[in-house]
Amino acid sequence: MKVEVVAIGTELLLGQIVDTNSSWIGEQLALAGLDSHYQTKVGDNPARIEAVLNIALARSDAVICCGGLGPTQDDLTRNVLASVMGVALERDDAIEARIRSMFASRGRTMPENNLSQAMVPVGARVMDQQPGTAPGLVCPVGEKVIYAVPGVPYEMKEMIDGTVIPDLTARAGHTAVIRSRILRTWGTSESALAEMLAERIDQLDTSGNPTLAFLASGVEGLKVRITAKAPVETEAVGMLDREEAVLREILGDIVFGVDDQNMEAVIVAMLAERSLTVAVAESVTGGYVSGRLCAVPGASQVFQGGVVAYQPEVKFDLLGVEEGPVVTEGAALAMAHGVRRALKADIGLATTGVAGPDEAEGKPVGTVCLAVAGSMAERAVTIRLPGDRERIRQFSTITLLDLLRKELPAGELV
Amino acid sequence: MKVEVVAIGTELLLGQIVDTNSSWIGEQLALAGLDSHYQTKVGDNPARIEAVLNIALARSDAVICCGGLGPTQDDLTRNVLASVMGVALERDDAIEARIRSMFASRGRTMPENNLSQAMVPVGARVMDQQPGTAPGLVCPVGEKVIYAVPGVPYEMKEMIDGTVIPDLTARAGHTAVIRSRILRTWGTSESALAEMLAERIDQLDTSGNPTLAFLASGVEGLKVRITAKAPVETEAVGMLDREEAVLREILGDIVFGVDDQNMEAVIVAMLAERSLTVAVAESVTGGYVSGRLCAVPGASQVFQGGVVAYQPEVKFDLLGVEEGPVVTEGAALAMAHGVRRALKADIGLATTGVAGPDEAEGKPVGTVCLAVAGSMAERAVTIRLPGDRERIRQFSTITLLDLLRKELPAGELV
Repeated sequence: MKVEVVAIGTELLLGQIVDTNSSWIGEQLALAGLDSHYQTKVGDNPARIEAVLNIALARSDAVICCGGLGPTQDDLTRNVLASVMGVALERDDAIEARIRSMFASRGRTMPENNLSQAMVPVGARVMDQQPGTAPGLVCPVGEKVIYAVPGVPYEMKEMIDGTVIPDLTARAGHTAVIRSRILRTWGTSESALAEMLAERIDQLDTSGNPTLAFLASGVEGLKVRITAKAPVETEAVGMLDREEAVLREILGDIVFGVDDQNMEAVIVAMLAERSLTVAVAESVTGGYVSGRLCAVPGASQVFQGGVVAYQPEVKFDLLGVEEGPVVTEGAALAMAHGVRRALKADIGLATTGVAGPDEAEGKPVGTVCLAVAGSMAERAVTIRLPGDRERIRQFSTITLLDLLRKELPAGELV
Repeated sequence: MKVEVVAIGTELLLGQIVDTNSSWIGEQLALAGLDSHYQTKVGDNPARIEAVLNIALARSDAVICCGGLGPTQDDLTRNVLASVMGVALERDDAIEARIRSMFASRGRTMPENNLSQAMVPVGARVMDQQPGTAPGLVCPVGEKVIYAVPGVPYEMKEMIDGTVIPDLTARAGHTAVIRSRILRTWGTSESALAEMLAERIDQLDTSGNPTLAFLASGVEGLKVRITAKAPVETEAVGMLDREEAVLREILGDIVFGVDDQNMEAVIVAMLAERSLTVAVAESVTGGYVSGRLCAVPGASQVFQGGVVAYQPEVKFDLLGVEEGPVVTEGAALAMAHGVRRALKADIGLATTGVAGPDEAEGKPVGTVCLAVAGSMAERAVTIRLPGDRERIRQFSTITLLDLLRKELPAGELV
């Protein structure tokens, strides 16, 4: 089963948007064991879109076509699909009713051009997933098929997962099951991680199943993906379980989570388990630590709140930090204790540092002090981060959360 | 002159690397006034690379082929180029000597397979730029041309700037310049925006220059891109200026910025211009508003700090909100005034609402109250947002900043 991806949008060719959709779809196809040999980008031009779809249909069994399903004049995918299928467009009453009700429920008037989204090529099936106003379409072309999904990433992903991949694996008559699991790590370099795993990768190369791959994910850390293939799901999952145990033995406590479990979710779960609450005082990170913790559903169980003490006076007035230099471990600790007391939390966290563009207090850009404080114990570290303002703030955020992750198990903070 | 881009590498298809090279090249082509209608990704397979190059040569005048020039077995571009050109490969003594001396100067032994990089199709020209071991090649194919550059971004960029773009513009024999500008908007739907601009787009369709396009950018709002083509840069920029003025007349105050200017940068600039400071009290957004403001270099000029009042008690204790329901405009206003006073800022901003997963105080998920308060005036609104927790928090953040953007010009807050 050969599948290829066509991304539609002049902005992709002009480099105004990087086509991350095709990359993500390519990854899902690979994980599902489907071959994918080509990806094409084409602009908002009907003749060229049609030519690209015809080339794709000639050399592949299925085409996933992404973008151009919006309500505006440069959203041309529907018309081109009808032309490639050799059919007319017809209005789908169910889609029309749904779009009208979406606007009504938000108390907004529906612009008439939104109804163009209810036009569907005769013979095409509308996908069940409908996260936005643009419907996804399954368009048969002889023995082959074109899937059309919107370019909005969260809408696209829901349809690829919910309709496209299951439909493709059914068409392919797949019996083998491919499953993968990601171990998420923080605190080591890619080359050090590769060195730690080199021997294990050599061992696995003999059988070729399961396989390991590294994914560098910037501020989300380094990921190790295990992929296993087996006749049935339970067997594939068993292989993943066994390999995960082997890798955890090798990697130790740099592994902080699995699959979608990000650092903040791990922290919220660890605190909830221990019935502890946390409050955050932020200078250099300016709200990112609080922002990430609150992103976790159920954060209200453990997260009291925070103080963004951006100006030194806020540190002195609200958090009781002694007047003086503020990019020090002492100031970070005072901030952590201050916010813990002010917000009546068990544990206080704090960041203070220099995000740039200029140095401060004689300390170079990238200098950051982090602190974790409870009523019984405290911990502070100073780190030096490379990169720009945003990178420094993001890395400080996850490094602070990782510090708490490593302090909590000892149970000495409170 | 039609130019297209072919990126070579199985890792691109598997989604292990996002193809940012093609995006960058597309941007350079557009800036040089060269048409670019297609970009293709293909894996490390000689037959498929050759097929893709032949398709590209048939529909374009020039092809930029990126990747597959390294020394390993899956670097196949040289061989395929020779095949497409119908010539043999021959060893280039100058390249061989250069590669040998590069290794020698680093005190490293040269693996023999590196010499494969000295093999050049007969009739191809080696590019002058040689930042790495892989040579860039200019390969004539009849009247057309293929440029082969390495996939390593800094090597690729040096060759594109130094050889490919100058060679292409010389071949094109014209000096047309394409320039584009983006107007960023907030506060309307994509379809409503399209309706506002429909008449103008129809007018422009007659000449086809400049053109307009919409780019939906989620929480960054909707963008309108103007693209103009002219013999010289000043004329293209003049067209952009005139079209921007026409569009601003039509769109009014939904336009908040131009090109890379995001909402927080606009807010920081507006506050700095008026010598005003701001403080933020956040519940539902949990730090996102502060986080975005601090992301702007120079934020310290206007941003005092904030209180993340996630638990109701923090709202009562630190911000002086009256005990009672907290998802109300009254609570939002009390929070805004409370943080303004506590942090000694001119203006206070506040968010309180229900991000889900569960409803709160009898209000459905997505209900958010936003407030802007100064010593002389205040403003609060209640909005209903669709989507998940993260989307609700992100949309609340930019909507609050947009509310301040619209209140500031009247000058009545302080």
